[in-house]
Amino acid sequence: MTDRTAVKAALASQRIELPSWAFGNSGTRFKVFAQAGVPRDPFEKIADAAQVHRYTGVAPTVSLHIPWDLVDDYHKLASHAESLGVRIGVINSNTFQDNDYMLGSVTHADPAVRRKAVDHLFACVDVMDATGSPDLKLWFADGTNYPGQDDFRARQDRLAESLSKVYDRLGDGQRMLLEYKLFEPAFYHTDVPDWGTSFAHCVALGEKAKVVVDTGHHAPGTNIEFIVAMLLRAGKLGAFDFNSRFYADDDLMVGSADPFQLFRIMHEVVRGGGLSASSGVNFMLDQCHNIEPKIPAQIRSVMNVQEATAKALLVDWPALSAAQQAGDVLGANAVLMDAYNTDVRPLLVELRQEQGLDPDPMAAYARTDYATKIVNERVGGHQAGWGA
Amino acid sequence: MTDRTAVKAALASQRIELPSWAFGNSGTRFKVFAQAGVPRDPFEKIADAAQVHRYTGVAPTVSLHIPWDLVDDYHKLASHAESLGVRIGVINSNTFQDNDYMLGSVTHADPAVRRKAVDHLFACVDVMDATGSPDLKLWFADGTNYPGQDDFRARQDRLAESLSKVYDRLGDGQRMLLEYKLFEPAFYHTDVPDWGTSFAHCVALGEKAKVVVDTGHHAPGTNIEFIVAMLLRAGKLGAFDFNSRFYADDDLMVGSADPFQLFRIMHEVVRGGGLSASSGVNFMLDQCHNIEPKIPAQIRSVMNVQEATAKALLVDWPALSAAQQAGDVLGANAVLMDAYNTDVRPLLVELRQEQGLDPDPMAAYARTDYATKIVNERVGGHQAGWGA
Amino acid sequence: MTDRTAVKAALASQRIELPSWAFGNSGTRFKVFAQAGVPRDPFEKIADAAQVHRYTGVAPTVSLHIPWDLVDDYHKLASHAESLGVRIGVINSNTFQDNDYMLGSVTHADPAVRRKAVDHLFACVDVMDATGSPDLKLWFADGTNYPGQDDFRARQDRLAESLSKVYDRLGDGQRMLLEYKLFEPAFYHTDVPDWGTSFAHCVALGEKAKVVVDTGHHAPGTNIEFIVAMLLRAGKLGAFDFNSRFYADDDLMVGSADPFQLFRIMHEVVRGGGLSASSGVNFMLDQCHNIEPKIPAQIRSVMNVQEATAKALLVDWPALSAAQQAGDVLGANAVLMDAYNTDVRPLLVELRQEQGLDPDPMAAYARTDYATKIVNERVGGHQAGWGA
Amino acid sequence: MTDRTAVKAALASQRIELPSWAFGNSGTRFKVFAQAGVPRDPFEKIADAAQVHRYTGVAPTVSLHIPWDLVDDYHKLASHAESLGVRIGVINSNTFQDNDYMLGSVTHADPAVRRKAVDHLFACVDVMDATGSPDLKLWFADGTNYPGQDDFRARQDRLAESLSKVYDRLGDGQRMLLEYKLFEPAFYHTDVPDWGTSFAHCVALGEKAKVVVDTGHHAPGTNIEFIVAMLLRAGKLGAFDFNSRFYADDDLMVGSADPFQLFRIMHEVVRGGGLSASSGVNFMLDQCHNIEPKIPAQIRSVMNVQEATAKALLVDWPALSAAQQAGDVLGANAVLMDAYNTDVRPLLVELRQEQGLDPDPMAAYARTDYATKIVNERVGGHQAGWGA
Repeated sequence: MTDRTAVKAALASQRIELPSWAFGNSGTRFKVFAQAGVPRDPFEKIADAAQVHRYTGVAPTVSLHIPWDLVDDYHKLASHAESLGVRIGVINSNTFQDNDYMLGSVTHADPAVRRKAVDHLFACVDVMDATGSPDLKLWFADGTNYPGQDDFRARQDRLAESLSKVYDRLGDGQRMLLEYKLFEPAFYHTDVPDWGTSFAHCVALGEKAKVVVDTGHHAPGTNIEFIVAMLLRAGKLGAFDFNSRFYADDDLMVGSADPFQLFRIMHEVVRGGGLSASSGVNFMLDQCHNIEPKIPAQIRSVMNVQEATAKALLVDWPALSAAQQAGDVLGANAVLMDAYNTDVRPLLVELRQEQGLDPDPMAAYARTDYATKIVNERVGGHQAGWGA
Repeated sequence: MTDRTAVKAALASQRIELPSWAFGNSGTRFKVFAQAGVPRDPFEKIADAAQVHRYTGVAPTVSLHIPWDLVDDYHKLASHAESLGVRIGVINSNTFQDNDYMLGSVTHADPAVRRKAVDHLFACVDVMDATGSPDLKLWFADGTNYPGQDDFRARQDRLAESLSKVYDRLGDGQRMLLEYKLFEPAFYHTDVPDWGTSFAHCVALGEKAKVVVDTGHHAPGTNIEFIVAMLLRAGKLGAFDFNSRFYADDDLMVGSADPFQLFRIMHEVVRGGGLSASSGVNFMLDQCHNIEPKIPAQIRSVMNVQEATAKALLVDWPALSAAQQAGDVLGANAVLMDAYNTDVRPLLVELRQEQGLDPDPMAAYARTDYATKIVNERVGGHQAGWGA
Repeated sequence: MTDRTAVKAALASQRIELPSWAFGNSGTRFKVFAQAGVPRDPFEKIADAAQVHRYTGVAPTVSLHIPWDLVDDYHKLASHAESLGVRIGVINSNTFQDNDYMLGSVTHADPAVRRKAVDHLFACVDVMDATGSPDLKLWFADGTNYPGQDDFRARQDRLAESLSKVYDRLGDGQRMLLEYKLFEPAFYHTDVPDWGTSFAHCVALGEKAKVVVDTGHHAPGTNIEFIVAMLLRAGKLGAFDFNSRFYADDDLMVGSADPFQLFRIMHEVVRGGGLSASSGVNFMLDQCHNIEPKIPAQIRSVMNVQEATAKALLVDWPALSAAQQAGDVLGANAVLMDAYNTDVRPLLVELRQEQGLDPDPMAAYARTDYATKIVNERVGGHQAGWGA
Repeated sequence: MTDRTAVKAALASQRIELPSWAFGNSGTRFKVFAQAGVPRDPFEKIADAAQVHRYTGVAPTVSLHIPWDLVDDYHKLASHAESLGVRIGVINSNTFQDNDYMLGSVTHADPAVRRKAVDHLFACVDVMDATGSPDLKLWFADGTNYPGQDDFRARQDRLAESLSKVYDRLGDGQRMLLEYKLFEPAFYHTDVPDWGTSFAHCVALGEKAKVVVDTGHHAPGTNIEFIVAMLLRAGKLGAFDFNSRFYADDDLMVGSADPFQLFRIMHEVVRGGGLSASSGVNFMLDQCHNIEPKIPAQIRSVMNVQEATAKALLVDWPALSAAQQAGDVLGANAVLMDAYNTDVRPLLVELRQEQGLDPDPMAAYARTDYATKIVNERVGGHQAGWGA
């Protein structure tokens, strides 16, 4: 697709979902550096997210995390969002911060703990019903730290049984998105460590179950774009959790560590039809901003995804395909690199201007007094973070 | 299973398959150091393999590699094997050494190349028919070196179509074993890079298709025993290719780099019923002996697998299970470590003596003049290696 | 050294240092699971550490961490330790939990922040003076998360200058131990990421500066025992921080993830003379016990180091050396593996009995009511953890 | 440096050295796919290299590899090179392909083998004398495959002694460049595995000894640009061996796997003064072209280095420095990314036109009949490859 107008149209229809928790404090096990002005509740998180959408125009939905974003009245929260021009997106569950979950949640040896975990997931479905959220995203911190600590096989059986109960609770048009992660917080084994495990469970569960690819959750050297291609081929790619990493699950801004990898991922997305709305692929950010200001970091991240997408859309497919068919290794690589090496920022400036947006979202936000305002106004209360 | 007699019975029934190519020369891209006395043909390879079985008693079958082990008369080769007390095992295909396969074999863009590759696989099934070999083991070197070089998705479609043709050719009691490998010789993407990909194809193909776990073919940090547990749970573990690695696909002697990992793998095998003959799991060695003498290296490797198996059989399951159920992290780990820390060599000495074998296979072989004899007799001709 | 008496003598003289923070709560960025009975202050931490020494007999010193172990009267703390049969060991600094250090401490662009950090290190030397501690252990969390965030070279200059000031403050018989770490909490670059960097600074500083090898702080695939051999050869190995890892800096119990690696490390220690008191090598534990009880976990860890050391001492050096000289690859490896495969637990039982200790430290501790007592008595107050 | 003219001047003075062996056949241990038209001798290799210089204008020197490039008359070879517009560069030694070196060369336990290896290195110095080559580049494949196989410490002593002998043979203006490599062909330990080891030996040897950074020779996750910064700060960076990798030492075209990493490396080179001729840093390619045509692959590689250099030169240093000093994490990163995201191809077109070169080196070469000519003319003889 090298038609500039078509590229812009595709970019204009792209949607990137923001995580409410990116606006709260975050850090490492060593230290959380609190930032002034950070939201104290879900309403303030959504307000911050709305700023990101305001200047980028492609981030109209916000993922919630339960119980971090627990409120009494979800209709009120949804109205609040709509009043700011955004909507509530995916509902994320949390079965890793209750003391009962120290040795597992849906895989725990104790049926009472599993029941509690499944009940929490049911409650998340209730939030979906209340908010109109289409997707339940599941990430389980379940695993073990020491060989022998628990039985892999029994845990898989318990996982399958728990997932099945939750799957059965889903209504029409609701999906289950199952994330995988190699390690952390479990350090010997994780119960859903790789795409193969998530895929096997999703196939067993049925059509509504899809795999989530978190770009930071792989072993060193893993070819993530290959996994994306495999899942799109199988109709099982549900969503991305975008972020980037140099080492482990660093949770840095997407595109900041390996922009070429992000481009290759978006290239496979375009190739596999994942950019079309009908594919159902949700492009979410899932990041920490430990040392940088959070709203600008989210704006930058959205822009990074846009730029990678723009480059992927600029690939000259007829030329690429011809070189591939001819076995022209250097030629095929050159077609791909030609798109990657293009500076797409002018194209995105053009698009934003056509959409009535400021051509430079970072500068536009920086010119406002929003950052100052939240620092001044958000005094007292308890700042949001991973723990609350 | 802590009953000493039962442990010995289980060890006595274990079978480890040897690769014919381990007896030929091997090396790295930098240099193959030829060794004196190396076989010149499949008959000599089988003779060397028979030595390993003679002193270990648990290695009665030999994998062949086509075309490296191409002969005119397979009945003659099978008779030769039987006369030496061993049998022909798995048939391994080779679609990576013909010039036509530079850019792929069963995934190649050119249908003529794919046809040639599939025809080779048909020929391997013919060898299975001629030798009574039950298993066709497939490892594809297919992949690309550069982003854009070829289309992942189209290659998967071609792969699926090629596999399907070969699968349909299998007779009753014949299986297809599909190996995966992260990288090498392809350096950007490999068409079957991980267990998820192999599993997805095997599920699509049917009951006769099973996954092969080569212990050297994973990304750093991969929990291999978890994969073993997953595949046994799904009824999809066909075979192991045992070897060991510190870095990449180092192909060192199994158990030499991480004996604890080998124990953990065998622990999952025991847990998942993979040691019983009915499971159909084939325990094969797939190794290189670049700098050490090959027959003793294979004997040592067989012993390493035996020792890991013995330790796994010694795990006190009731105690382990009780500790796991109780959430006793240190206690459960201690039960496992207690088995691992046991010196099982006396137990294996006892077993060998009961079987009429020398208690020390390495020393027993070293006392013979076989090594000298092959150096003296195998003069002239062309030494076997990966290339022939 | 295969003389059983000599091996036991060497083991009897071994000293393993315990970290005070291992007895406090710890966890991941996702959750800290508090444990009942955890110490509220340095006095209680030392009391717990004394339990570990009581049953193992080889852990008579305790590392402090400043400011976590800040007390008004260090003489009182030292007397408390001595009354329980232990002593204060290494002083660890902390320049990563003050808000000023978000972008660095001794490498920070702002001289005021660097001054503050250096002043903290001076204060640690004061604690050394007060407690008689011989070693200042420095680990810097300094680094950056994003390319371009700061200037590597300028940070190295600032690091060198800061270290130099602290080095100059050391008295006779005081040493500086400089730890390195690949990543975390910094995710793009760390200012002292590898042994080469620590070594280069220590060489520049002088004789009193030595490198610390934390076994969890390396890139995947790093051969840690090689680094140990290199540092011993150069006279620059100051200490170990023992723990173990499957993935990143997992901080699991030493010997639990790769006991063979621990043995290889101890083999190089024995080879390089690092076990002799004159070498000055300090064998410290640096671990987290996120989900297991802390005192038994430390006992198990000490035992794991002892077992690895015992195996290393059992290596038949004349036989090993002869095989190495002869180029006998399998023979040399077999000598090493023979020691590793030996069950040394009976030898350690013997040693403990000779020393008047219980032969089974884990069971001996479990039979006491210490664990119950601390749960009952340590009520109220603020449990110690990484943050306090 | 954002002055376009100054950037072009810097680019015009850049020199990239080509490896003679890149023009010969290469492959993996599985297969070498021979290419038609490949050189049969050093004269033909230099002729091919001269083509790369002809179209890029920045690659006027060619590294030789002894004994692969052994000739009777080096003056003749040098004259041949000069007649084609290029010169002979670094001399590379080879102590890994003789049967005597199976267990080591300069580190071998047998003094006779070490003497042979050192004599070969002396012979390489003789070639330097004959050709006027300024640098001796040393890469040792020495290492072991199995724990216990040999003694790390003794091997370091032998290495130091061997290096010292060769160092003493160097004349005025001659340097020794010591390369490191994590693994392969040795699979347990390598005698010079990391920059720390190379650095320690170079410091011990003296001013003429410098470290070589091969971009493919690191553990996963290693921050290579940090090493570059460290070595430049210490005055110990002698040369690069450029290539790229997704997994291990893949030896792909530089810039093809992680162009952002290459940019970050060049950014540190610019920062540390490594681009100036006086720094003595040699920018060499060291690559394989297993499946792609070799001359165009070298042209592409040279262009990739040029583009990364151009981007590094475009960094707005005052803005970067200001943001760094201000602790503006996003701002500093944005300055760097702004340079990276710039499409520098128009600038390089401009530069080439000013230099009288074709603006598109790939197309210019493709338009010639050189490729056809060498296929037609280079018939018979023995194609060059790693083994010859």
